[in-house]
Amino acid sequence: MPAPRFVRFDDVRPFLLGEGVTASPLFGEGAMLNLLEFEPGATVPLHSHPHEQLGIVLRGMQALVVDGIARELGPLEGYVLPGGVEHAAYAGPEGALVLDVFCPPREDYLERWSAEG
Amino acid sequence: MPAPRFVRFDDVRPFLLGEGVTASPLFGEGAMLNLLEFEPGATVPLHSHPHEQLGIVLRGMQALVVDGIARELGPLEGYVLPGGVEHAAYAGPEGALVLDVFCPPREDYLERWSAEG
Repeated sequence: MPAPRFVRFDDVRPFLLGEGVTASPLFGEGAMLNLLEFEPGATVPLHSHPHEQLGIVLRGMQALVVDGIARELGPLEGYVLPGGVEHAAYAGPEGALVLDVFCPPREDYLERWSAEG
Repeated sequence: MPAPRFVRFDDVRPFLLGEGVTASPLFGEGAMLNLLEFEPGATVPLHSHPHEQLGIVLRGMQALVVDGIARELGPLEGYVLPGGVEHAAYAGPEGALVLDVFCPPREDYLERWSAEG
């Protein structure tokens, strides 16, 4: 059986998710956490992935754009994006701290995170 | 394909997880979020479940007890508990706000949450 793990996210080596967006991941077997720090106004372009994505905004504002509609989410607002749903994101003028959850874990993130190590 | 969902956790009807611990869930298909508010000193007795559990402390202190060892976790400290690992939890004197993630979603929580609706 895999062992329990405890991490201080401040100690997790972040990887660059995109311009102005850094990600600190915690990989489980079935799911993963990804703590995102958006610089003010940082954007994530339209994309999709087969993984289900859930998340919650912890600080600042993150907008999620689905079907051309932007939903501006503040602290303690959450979301479920089924796998395959195209979406983009952008942060407000104060940036944002966001916790994303992916199920299953993003293999591409694991590769990128490991490669930068 | 299921539709994206957006929620304000403050608007989610909470259910009572245990004495002094309320839970506001957001159910996905493969995983779920569960936002827990611990009153000061609230405890969750030793238990286990087959679901993988990940989480992060957002405010205050939550200790997780595994194999008789208590790990006191503060804001932005996270964890992965593989399914089947016995664990207990308690909050510090200021309580705690914690985001738990379960994979797959907890059917027992869905039943309890639906029953209280």
